Amino acid sequence: MITAGVIGATGYAGSQLVALLSAHPQVRLAYVASHSYVGKRFGEVYPSLFPIGDLILQEEDIEEASHVCDVLFVALPHGMASHKISEEILSRCVVIDLGADFRLSDRAVYESWYQCDHPSSHLLTESVYGLCELHRRAIKGARLIANPGCYTTCSILALAPLVGTGLVDPTSLIIDSASGTSGAGRSEKIGSLFCEVNENYKAYGVTNHRHTPEIEQELSLQNGAPLVVQFTPHLVPMNRGILSTCYANLKAGVGEDEVRAAYEEYYGDEPFIRLMGSDLPETRFVRATNVCAIGWKVDERTKRVVAISAIDNLVKGAAGQAVQNMNIRFALGETTGLATSVASPL
Amino acid sequence: MITAGVIGATGYAGSQLVALLSAHPQVRLAYVASHSYVGKRFGEVYPSLFPIGDLILQEEDIEEASHVCDVLFVALPHGMASHKISEEILSRCVVIDLGADFRLSDRAVYESWYQCDHPSSHLLTESVYGLCELHRRAIKGARLIANPGCYTTCSILALAPLVGTGLVDPTSLIIDSASGTSGAGRSEKIGSLFCEVNENYKAYGVTNHRHTPEIEQELSLQNGAPLVVQFTPHLVPMNRGILSTCYANLKAGVGEDEVRAAYEEYYGDEPFIRLMGSDLPETRFVRATNVCAIGWKVDERTKRVVAISAIDNLVKGAAGQAVQNMNIRFALGETTGLATSVASPL
Amino acid sequence: MITAGVIGATGYAGSQLVALLSAHPQVRLAYVASHSYVGKRFGEVYPSLFPIGDLILQEEDIEEASHVCDVLFVALPHGMASHKISEEILSRCVVIDLGADFRLSDRAVYESWYQCDHPSSHLLTESVYGLCELHRRAIKGARLIANPGCYTTCSILALAPLVGTGLVDPTSLIIDSASGTSGAGRSEKIGSLFCEVNENYKAYGVTNHRHTPEIEQELSLQNGAPLVVQFTPHLVPMNRGILSTCYANLKAGVGEDEVRAAYEEYYGDEPFIRLMGSDLPETRFVRATNVCAIGWKVDERTKRVVAISAIDNLVKGAAGQAVQNMNIRFALGETTGLATSVASPL
Amino acid sequence: MITAGVIGATGYAGSQLVALLSAHPQVRLAYVASHSYVGKRFGEVYPSLFPIGDLILQEEDIEEASHVCDVLFVALPHGMASHKISEEILSRCVVIDLGADFRLSDRAVYESWYQCDHPSSHLLTESVYGLCELHRRAIKGARLIANPGCYTTCSILALAPLVGTGLVDPTSLIIDSASGTSGAGRSEKIGSLFCEVNENYKAYGVTNHRHTPEIEQELSLQNGAPLVVQFTPHLVPMNRGILSTCYANLKAGVGEDEVRAAYEEYYGDEPFIRLMGSDLPETRFVRATNVCAIGWKVDERTKRVVAISAIDNLVKGAAGQAVQNMNIRFALGETTGLATSVASPL
Repeated sequence: MITAGVIGATGYAGSQLVALLSAHPQVRLAYVASHSYVGKRFGEVYPSLFPIGDLILQEEDIEEASHVCDVLFVALPHGMASHKISEEILSRCVVIDLGADFRLSDRAVYESWYQCDHPSSHLLTESVYGLCELHRRAIKGARLIANPGCYTTCSILALAPLVGTGLVDPTSLIIDSASGTSGAGRSEKIGSLFCEVNENYKAYGVTNHRHTPEIEQELSLQNGAPLVVQFTPHLVPMNRGILSTCYANLKAGVGEDEVRAAYEEYYGDEPFIRLMGSDLPETRFVRATNVCAIGWKVDERTKRVVAISAIDNLVKGAAGQAVQNMNIRFALGETTGLATSVASPL
Repeated sequence: MITAGVIGATGYAGSQLVALLSAHPQVRLAYVASHSYVGKRFGEVYPSLFPIGDLILQEEDIEEASHVCDVLFVALPHGMASHKISEEILSRCVVIDLGADFRLSDRAVYESWYQCDHPSSHLLTESVYGLCELHRRAIKGARLIANPGCYTTCSILALAPLVGTGLVDPTSLIIDSASGTSGAGRSEKIGSLFCEVNENYKAYGVTNHRHTPEIEQELSLQNGAPLVVQFTPHLVPMNRGILSTCYANLKAGVGEDEVRAAYEEYYGDEPFIRLMGSDLPETRFVRATNVCAIGWKVDERTKRVVAISAIDNLVKGAAGQAVQNMNIRFALGETTGLATSVASPL
Repeated sequence: MITAGVIGATGYAGSQLVALLSAHPQVRLAYVASHSYVGKRFGEVYPSLFPIGDLILQEEDIEEASHVCDVLFVALPHGMASHKISEEILSRCVVIDLGADFRLSDRAVYESWYQCDHPSSHLLTESVYGLCELHRRAIKGARLIANPGCYTTCSILALAPLVGTGLVDPTSLIIDSASGTSGAGRSEKIGSLFCEVNENYKAYGVTNHRHTPEIEQELSLQNGAPLVVQFTPHLVPMNRGILSTCYANLKAGVGEDEVRAAYEEYYGDEPFIRLMGSDLPETRFVRATNVCAIGWKVDERTKRVVAISAIDNLVKGAAGQAVQNMNIRFALGETTGLATSVASPL
Repeated sequence: MITAGVIGATGYAGSQLVALLSAHPQVRLAYVASHSYVGKRFGEVYPSLFPIGDLILQEEDIEEASHVCDVLFVALPHGMASHKISEEILSRCVVIDLGADFRLSDRAVYESWYQCDHPSSHLLTESVYGLCELHRRAIKGARLIANPGCYTTCSILALAPLVGTGLVDPTSLIIDSASGTSGAGRSEKIGSLFCEVNENYKAYGVTNHRHTPEIEQELSLQNGAPLVVQFTPHLVPMNRGILSTCYANLKAGVGEDEVRAAYEEYYGDEPFIRLMGSDLPETRFVRATNVCAIGWKVDERTKRVVAISAIDNLVKGAAGQAVQNMNIRFALGETTGLATSVASPL
């Protein structure tokens, strides 16, 4: 049994995390904090989680939380965690940061894409990028785990085997993604109102979305050399789910067999990866689960591979992968407390 | 460990049942049948349930199934179960029927509302109406359990305490309900197409919906004398959920205290009833759970009580309550395998 | 050709009004104001209305606007119009107020339901309740027209013929309504976020919604004596549309013939009322039109009539009826610039 | 005044066409036919179009229709129009075919992608591809106009200026599109049920969608040499709208100025093209209109242009463009009867 805390518990990712942790058989929730709802009952904000409805929301005091927790999950807007996480805190407890502050190992890249200074850049070399399937070994010994972004998890998992085994031209990568609206968070923005999102489909962050450098960092690692990607996110009128449709030019002679072999080499034994081959994934197939489903088609006409991956943005794309990271870090059994299937329609 | 079978496994209620049973720690799924998909893999029809994706769908042979199952769930269109359930089958296994055929104890009422003969009306006296909170004792000894309808579960639970304790005028009951679209089933009907349902709200079955006599039967039992109700269902562009807004004229002198006392008397200890008082329920509060949430307002101006109840139509309104019935019947622990809360938005 | 102004042009009702007026063949838009977007292009806020995209939004200066407009539409939160509309303004131009401030003729009723003083209650006796089908004659000579609320338009139109011809028990009226989310307006509220509304259905304002006294005022007029109604609104995950399901106990001897006759007497010649009899309306039948569709069922079992009405809340429930009021007031041809049908699905 | 007929009037595109034609000031609807609803009132199938509700649906007899119509719109599944359109029919009336049968000028390409013979391939050389902005001159004299597909209209319009002016590498074209569900038509398919589409996002037809050769034919014309494209459609849980996100590698030295100039050269005076530059289009901006909105971003990092276009799939992508073709062919004024803007949210 380990004790866990959540800072930023009433956002969509944070509350999904509270839901997962409160049902996790080896976790005791010791600190649950929310800037906006200090002193309120959790059930006032999320009535659907009524078994923990009487839990009182505390101040977001990471210092205090670090004294009572073995693991501290931080789900704050970018720029905040990097101010609050210190050597002292990390000496007391493991931190799993769901924000963007410790994902990019190159400070200059962070400061360029996020347009702000990084106040604790010395921790960037220590932090481990918590994409479990690619960095499991490092996660086991980490004090600071940077939980990946939602688009990035979905997109990197789809392309890593193709790039890492050298099957595709690394200059040709195009990632066209779409997300449900919970990805925009629970803040009061006109653009997130029901009537602005419903019955609409749009691209946003075209050419400059902040998940781009994360994807490039990880695929460059796979590539063994720097690469750039074209990444375009879209907004879908649904609550949850991300689908990435990824395009890459195949190298000469590469066909279906090589592509399949690459995916099986990378993910053959992974508990949360579901390889579907030409039965392409849909977001509902993985809704409310920690699974990333991946399918692909080799196009003989165009000599490209189209790889398609789907996740639940709040689970594998945020809270679920955070729990998976905790499970790995504390050797709790990687799948404990995480669903792999679900009834449909949900 | 008991063995279970599902006849009609690929409808929305049936597949939700398969999902619940396959995750139930004390159940082994021994027979899963679907008329439309005989010989196919379950995963072809429901890719989201991939851990049981390789399960092969069998013919809907209740006779054969009854030899290998302790409990048999039947989820067929009305008129079919009554032809197939026999004394012999009941001598071998418990039957939980999710259809309408054994819900109405009065054959004439059935034949009048369903416009067809009832071929096994001798079983109507034996069958137990499986609304767990009201008939738990009888369920424990039943061979044939008629699992209630979705609207009926939601509406009866909201009104039973008020009618049963004599707080309201039994001639004044009006039930205005609304359901998500999975209630219409997974059949190919123009009226269930996305573009016909989305961005629309409508009433249907006005004055003649077949759940009416079920509600009347149960509330008449509570009333100790026959009563009729006004019941109007509506269709909501969402996947799951039912909300019943119930109106009743209060008897003289009845106020908030008496109303609250009635609900607490009926449901104070119920694991799947959540009394919310004036914090009214919404369908998302109980999505994907087996909970019925109930709230109410006493209107001093009009001398009425407005009681509002919410369920997930596929869980407490169908598959979940069927599992709850199984749990009660086989003394497995009433809440085993059934969720009572969920992250939101889902 | 008349000149028109809109104060509050960037809310959902206001922008629908701008859209209708800009396409109206006998209107010139002379003043378009928005508190939140002063100095911005209209097209920045509503890119879908691009032919008027370069129109610059002005300050909400009713005084100034009244000098350049024949008719001034005011779409402000309640409590604001009553501070700004004066005898002087009315001496210069006709005011059609889409807010609640001048709808209730009894100041005490207003102050009780809205919990605030009414600063210009002397205008309450002058203002005409702009439900066109019931007050057309008075509208023709009005200086101040109080455009009705959305729920109220829908509900009053359904019940007025039944109450006005004495067919139903006036103590038995129950109105169960549901609205699309644009009715909640374009303000930044957590409760209006996509993820809070989508896949959910809820009641709100139970027993105390502010449209109740409006309905009671108008139905009391029809009744010839005060009455109270039970009114319950619900929120539907769709953009537009209101459906009211109205219940009333029929007086002895009243049947289908009398009910039909009452509707035909009231609305036989109305251009924007569509009587559907037992073919019940759905919200999509009137989407984007100024039509109110009404159907009904007489329930012989319960001796009640269930009347169902549907409107588009932003058109007949707000901007469309405002234009209809203008058309009547300025003798422009009542249907000019207002749609009565639409392609589906929309 | 011309007389028009519609064959296939009760599909979503067909009924949108009937709606547009019935409101068109220079058209008289003389023949409205539907295979599935012969003899029924149009209003039984589409109650929202009630002003033409009493119009009786006729048999789909193109021969007969051609005797009474100046222009005949044919909206049938592929393979049917090519059997029914003959020299004789074309000698009597202009045919605008909304299906796929006459869009591909190369019979072999048609037979390869559609996997069926083409029975009237002699008409392929005569038929004009009715993408109005690119083939206006030929449309003016055409007897047989092949109205383009929905995805194709949207995608070709976005890429034609870039390809036609030689700004991009013609081997690099990738088109990632998404459509509302009305594009799947009004047929009873499990995959089109509300609960199968709602809360889901998926790709389909990956590498083999039949709109691919249409796009390739038209862009090859612009290119002056054959090219292939990568085209991936997706399904969005909304009623209407298509967005195409198009990627192309820029030739050396090409920047924002050249891109903008290309769009302005092609579409500067087009009444139904709305160039938005870096203010990217969303589907709601053009909902219910005949407009194609186009925006673009030049990505200096990747040396690509991302062009994004949006249309209403039932209007500019089907019925609206068909009316535009009629307007051009009969010199009725190209914009007559076609909307260019709309209130939002709709």
